[in-house]
Amino acid sequence: MNVQDLKGKKIAFAASGGLDSCTITHWLARQGVDVVCMTADLGQPDEASFEEIETRMRASGAADFVGLPLQETLAEIGLDVVQAQACYEGRYWNTTGAGRQAIVQGVVAEMQKRGLTIMSHGATGRGNDQVRFQIAAAMLDPAIEVYAPWRDPAFLQRFRGRQQMIDYCEQHGIPIKATRGKPYSTDANLLGLTHEGGLLEALTTPADLVVPAMGQWPEAARDTAAAVTLRFEKGRPVALDGEALPLADVFRRLNLLAGRHAVGIGLHMVENRFVGVKSRGVYEAPGMELLATAYALLTQIVLDRRATELFATLSGYLARQLYQGYWHDLGSRMARTAVAESAALMTGTITMSLYRGTVRFVSASDVVHSLFNADGSMEAEGSFDHDDAEGLLRILTLNARTLARAGQTKGAKSSAVA
Amino acid sequence: MNVQDLKGKKIAFAASGGLDSCTITHWLARQGVDVVCMTADLGQPDEASFEEIETRMRASGAADFVGLPLQETLAEIGLDVVQAQACYEGRYWNTTGAGRQAIVQGVVAEMQKRGLTIMSHGATGRGNDQVRFQIAAAMLDPAIEVYAPWRDPAFLQRFRGRQQMIDYCEQHGIPIKATRGKPYSTDANLLGLTHEGGLLEALTTPADLVVPAMGQWPEAARDTAAAVTLRFEKGRPVALDGEALPLADVFRRLNLLAGRHAVGIGLHMVENRFVGVKSRGVYEAPGMELLATAYALLTQIVLDRRATELFATLSGYLARQLYQGYWHDLGSRMARTAVAESAALMTGTITMSLYRGTVRFVSASDVVHSLFNADGSMEAEGSFDHDDAEGLLRILTLNARTLARAGQTKGAKSSAVA
Amino acid sequence: MNVQDLKGKKIAFAASGGLDSCTITHWLARQGVDVVCMTADLGQPDEASFEEIETRMRASGAADFVGLPLQETLAEIGLDVVQAQACYEGRYWNTTGAGRQAIVQGVVAEMQKRGLTIMSHGATGRGNDQVRFQIAAAMLDPAIEVYAPWRDPAFLQRFRGRQQMIDYCEQHGIPIKATRGKPYSTDANLLGLTHEGGLLEALTTPADLVVPAMGQWPEAARDTAAAVTLRFEKGRPVALDGEALPLADVFRRLNLLAGRHAVGIGLHMVENRFVGVKSRGVYEAPGMELLATAYALLTQIVLDRRATELFATLSGYLARQLYQGYWHDLGSRMARTAVAESAALMTGTITMSLYRGTVRFVSASDVVHSLFNADGSMEAEGSFDHDDAEGLLRILTLNARTLARAGQTKGAKSSAVA
Amino acid sequence: MNVQDLKGKKIAFAASGGLDSCTITHWLARQGVDVVCMTADLGQPDEASFEEIETRMRASGAADFVGLPLQETLAEIGLDVVQAQACYEGRYWNTTGAGRQAIVQGVVAEMQKRGLTIMSHGATGRGNDQVRFQIAAAMLDPAIEVYAPWRDPAFLQRFRGRQQMIDYCEQHGIPIKATRGKPYSTDANLLGLTHEGGLLEALTTPADLVVPAMGQWPEAARDTAAAVTLRFEKGRPVALDGEALPLADVFRRLNLLAGRHAVGIGLHMVENRFVGVKSRGVYEAPGMELLATAYALLTQIVLDRRATELFATLSGYLARQLYQGYWHDLGSRMARTAVAESAALMTGTITMSLYRGTVRFVSASDVVHSLFNADGSMEAEGSFDHDDAEGLLRILTLNARTLARAGQTKGAKSSAVA
Repeated sequence: MNVQDLKGKKIAFAASGGLDSCTITHWLARQGVDVVCMTADLGQPDEASFEEIETRMRASGAADFVGLPLQETLAEIGLDVVQAQACYEGRYWNTTGAGRQAIVQGVVAEMQKRGLTIMSHGATGRGNDQVRFQIAAAMLDPAIEVYAPWRDPAFLQRFRGRQQMIDYCEQHGIPIKATRGKPYSTDANLLGLTHEGGLLEALTTPADLVVPAMGQWPEAARDTAAAVTLRFEKGRPVALDGEALPLADVFRRLNLLAGRHAVGIGLHMVENRFVGVKSRGVYEAPGMELLATAYALLTQIVLDRRATELFATLSGYLARQLYQGYWHDLGSRMARTAVAESAALMTGTITMSLYRGTVRFVSASDVVHSLFNADGSMEAEGSFDHDDAEGLLRILTLNARTLARAGQTKGAKSSAVA
Repeated sequence: MNVQDLKGKKIAFAASGGLDSCTITHWLARQGVDVVCMTADLGQPDEASFEEIETRMRASGAADFVGLPLQETLAEIGLDVVQAQACYEGRYWNTTGAGRQAIVQGVVAEMQKRGLTIMSHGATGRGNDQVRFQIAAAMLDPAIEVYAPWRDPAFLQRFRGRQQMIDYCEQHGIPIKATRGKPYSTDANLLGLTHEGGLLEALTTPADLVVPAMGQWPEAARDTAAAVTLRFEKGRPVALDGEALPLADVFRRLNLLAGRHAVGIGLHMVENRFVGVKSRGVYEAPGMELLATAYALLTQIVLDRRATELFATLSGYLARQLYQGYWHDLGSRMARTAVAESAALMTGTITMSLYRGTVRFVSASDVVHSLFNADGSMEAEGSFDHDDAEGLLRILTLNARTLARAGQTKGAKSSAVA
Repeated sequence: MNVQDLKGKKIAFAASGGLDSCTITHWLARQGVDVVCMTADLGQPDEASFEEIETRMRASGAADFVGLPLQETLAEIGLDVVQAQACYEGRYWNTTGAGRQAIVQGVVAEMQKRGLTIMSHGATGRGNDQVRFQIAAAMLDPAIEVYAPWRDPAFLQRFRGRQQMIDYCEQHGIPIKATRGKPYSTDANLLGLTHEGGLLEALTTPADLVVPAMGQWPEAARDTAAAVTLRFEKGRPVALDGEALPLADVFRRLNLLAGRHAVGIGLHMVENRFVGVKSRGVYEAPGMELLATAYALLTQIVLDRRATELFATLSGYLARQLYQGYWHDLGSRMARTAVAESAALMTGTITMSLYRGTVRFVSASDVVHSLFNADGSMEAEGSFDHDDAEGLLRILTLNARTLARAGQTKGAKSSAVA
Repeated sequence: MNVQDLKGKKIAFAASGGLDSCTITHWLARQGVDVVCMTADLGQPDEASFEEIETRMRASGAADFVGLPLQETLAEIGLDVVQAQACYEGRYWNTTGAGRQAIVQGVVAEMQKRGLTIMSHGATGRGNDQVRFQIAAAMLDPAIEVYAPWRDPAFLQRFRGRQQMIDYCEQHGIPIKATRGKPYSTDANLLGLTHEGGLLEALTTPADLVVPAMGQWPEAARDTAAAVTLRFEKGRPVALDGEALPLADVFRRLNLLAGRHAVGIGLHMVENRFVGVKSRGVYEAPGMELLATAYALLTQIVLDRRATELFATLSGYLARQLYQGYWHDLGSRMARTAVAESAALMTGTITMSLYRGTVRFVSASDVVHSLFNADGSMEAEGSFDHDDAEGLLRILTLNARTLARAGQTKGAKSSAVA
């Protein structure tokens, strides 16, 4: 889709409110496009208010502005991630991936209310976000078309970099916030921050080039440990240190607490992007990390070996699905339903201790579906005895011996003929 | 197998040299069994010398004693674990599982040299180690029979606990080392320590009940970070801070270094034992943890998305296989061969910084098979452009839209009929 | 558990009504055990009526008799298997595994009604069925204890084989049905027959030693093809050739039809039993095979690539779980819930043609959630064009080229340094 | 890449020798491109000789012609598929996917010999083949660029369908073979035929619209069964009915034999193409099907449960990789190495009986690494006894009971508190 296709039409634009948003909105408006700016409140740490953003977007020529309060929506997706332990390639809590889903859900609903069918976004042409935006939008409403200025030759020709956008805004009197260029770019929401690009693109740049915004590096954290107690009911964290809290507040409070103790700050990885290239990220997700650690402790107590195996498969699957934008397809729905079945058993209280980037187990109690000594002490009557073990071992050994006799073990030198 | 079956026979006994070993050896000798004690040197932190142990075992009535130097064997298995990232249930580096394989390999080889066919071990009747011992032995030599005193009613009737063994040894003048009972039991080798049982069996006991033996808890670690550089060639760590070292020395040095900085100390989990029961462990594996972290960084740079997915499956598979004792069967050999194919690509230098239990990425260089910007800068010619992305996105969106039209997304309300 | 433990107690015995059942019941009764015989009607092809069996069991000394009508229960489990395509090791439709679950569900419910806590079964000590019986019983009611005569030394000493049971029954005037020994043993229910043991234990015995009971071998089938049309709604077969039928009737009718055309007759495999040994089976499951084939055709039309991958994993998982008796644990519940999410999309009509053991696709229609041309013709507007493909290919090729430049492809000779 | 980029350059063109090849070659030549036609001999059933094709291609303006004898190369890939049981989405033997890999291997090697760096192919812009061609080429030689006329607007504008190509060839006196349009299109090689498109694109078209070219439908096959014996050594079929044969001959002979008996004829599926759309195919792969069936029987006898599970995962993985063109990346190499480890154990002789589309097991012998009764009869000494089974069952039941007590089974009503 190119800008010519939009002339005289009303479109929705997922605007963050920053330099890109202002530039794109103004440029589109000048081409005769009616731009309805939709801005999501995802609980970004340093977020401007809807009022401020509305002022800025209208000054940039927006025909209309909608503020979408999506913190609760995002928190629910964050909880889905925690319950599935859906950590991408084992390290990244998918905070941006979750944020994109929340935005699209909000924007599409608003578009349907207003009868709009064209969505625009400011994601670049090489990243994951364009993929997540467009797949999610198409899945939620197949009638929606997407216009991506960063893939439109006309736009690209006009704006080749940040400086040109700044010049453009100044020239047109658009009141952009004066932010200095950072040595890397950051995406932020309630669940966490992702830093990438810029100087981080050299693998010789240390991770601590990043200045944390949700906490600090371990060296800068206080020197005393803090304990925290989370109460889960049927997979949901319902109380923190005994205080009942709604979900988004749990994330907020855990972000503060964990961030202060450097937990979940500066997670580092080189990952495989959807489009195939490698990308390096430094992540902050203090609340997610702490919540997920507590949840993992619960799962260790509750899931038997067979369920653990299936759960691990579903974790990896869902992490990839969310990272790539496939959060609403059948596969994700299947996996989430299965995970929900396990979450229903996760009731209990976990206490941990935080200290300079580390989390330590303190105690677990009231774990309703615990398999740990659920039968009373292992030593007590009811357990199996030496004789049973002898039987089990005889059977296992017979099998192992059969493999050996068939020449299948070690260097697999054959000896048997059937 | 019961002790009556052993009278007048010569057997191999995998003796650690501790209280159990002395008691079992003496008791067996008195029943007319010729006990050849075989003790493995696995680089346990606090290990006695072969001489000391031999003296003790002979004083306990051993007919013969063999010291098996198995540190290199164990280090190689440890490297296999690192290369496969075979962390059991995502948390435990399988150090005891690896140790058992090393012991059995050494003992079986020695038995075959001496023409012995009965092996005895001191593992208890409810743990994983009996399983690992017996499966591994049967696989390496199907002619081997196993006698397990802790599953023999005669032995169990005589010795009901630690105190009775102490009394027995004192009574028979066996020179046991006077160790006080600890509030948990520990298994140790070059790769790490596992602490479990005793007070740890209550989930209300904090993890830091454990007094680390390979390092310290983060609070007690020094307040300055230390950098460490590991050079890998074809999957093997060949140099540490520029100094070429054999593998076992790499583990030794990393144990000291990481332990000092509280890295890999106090790993905690509740796990599923082979026999089905839950078990709680606190682990120390400083060298493994650090080496595996460095190796993981390399894999992130080298493995593409497809290889990453297969690799993750193999990691989980091999972790379970080693944990359960199936290190020599066909499945493990298949998985190890596949992992070796990836290890052949792991050449490069990784620098990390250690601080109070945390590891931070500093830099990667000379990664020969790197996919990170291997093509020069992403921004440079040779990369794909906005137009290609538009094409890709159109195809992906078409698919997503088809799913939506077929009523498969979100709440899956149907709308289409084919 | 041994027979002494049962004296004077009332127990439930899952009796098939055959030679074993009569012998066990009578023998137990003589030891002073109150035996409540519970016989399941699973729709076995050649099954005696409850009346006949009751007469026989009472004549054998049963204190009471309960006939359990479980055909519908079994049919539902069969449908679960079809919806999950849960074919064990890719070949066996788990018909006996399903049957055991149905029996245990029926027996446990009846036991709870009557306040009984000891269950007995006639499964032998080396097969899968004892495992399935006991795991399922313990899961459904952990208070239940199991007595297995074929693992009780007293029983085994008295009865060493079939002939001794026949002699015993004749001697005690028990009216056993005069069946001649077959060269293999058979388990039968509505879903299918499993033949194993006896002459089948030699891998040089051809599969067609088996005389089919639910149909015939292809050579003996009629020489004309027959068409059959199955209508599915939300994963359930609701009509056969236009006639609405309850589920158990669908199985009955498909058994007749497919069996007549040799479809699903004589499925052959060598499989891995739970206890580790290999077992060879020849299976008949005409209705299951045909229903599952039709269902598979539907899934091919409905499941996208991502869902297909997850579905395949769940199929294998559930097949193993059911085969081994773990149908009620958390893992199975998770997997079944996920499968149900896909089943909800399986609405459509499939026509197939049957001919001498082969099934041919004739047509699919009214597939509500079809992805096949759901967008109208591929050639029509709305599809992607050559230019989009060019973009996609450029991105894919860039990635492939990066792999090659990094020395990862083919013989993996390195050339690049990052 | 567009045709303008090629003017005055010498390029390699993977030509089949049919209507497309002639048209493309002539059209390119007229635009000033030096076209080196490279034609692979993949053992297509009805293939013209290199001489015939060379004559035709030169008459079409080819600057040069190379005949590439690739039957052995293809047969080896076919064997890889058999050894991995790499059946795409459980049904398709990947014969075209294998053929594409063979062609690219041959063409790239020839290009490197001649110093060519541009490859052209006649695959269309919506199918899998363009993907396979280009990914494989880029992996084997990253310096290669690809020109795809069916994605070049200039070419597409000139040729909109088959008729225009026929007209063009007649007009320019190009001696195309007069083939009538078929109601579907076919790709053929030694391993099999794939039929798709045309009338097959309606799901209401019966599969038997296809006229088999490698055999016949079951109804038309002879009425007598035929036996066939395959001897495998280390995973390779080395003899057929006692006659030693090279691999390609094994495929040829099995194609004839199985085709005659309708085995592997008319395999039908709706599959997920790489680009996301559904595609329907009817396949013939008689030799592959029969060889793979025999091989599967061997694996059933040789692979233990743990290896079977890993093997199934690798099968699915490799099937997807080959289908999508990723045969040379690290993931495929890892998986193939693992499979080779299992293939090394596949030595034995399998006899089967073929009858009208069905294959029946007759016997297996000399299976060197058999686990089936490798220990002598199960009934014989050395096996486990009732007492061992009692021990095993007690342990399993304890675990099952623990799950139940923890409220995890069935409806998962909780009762326990830890």
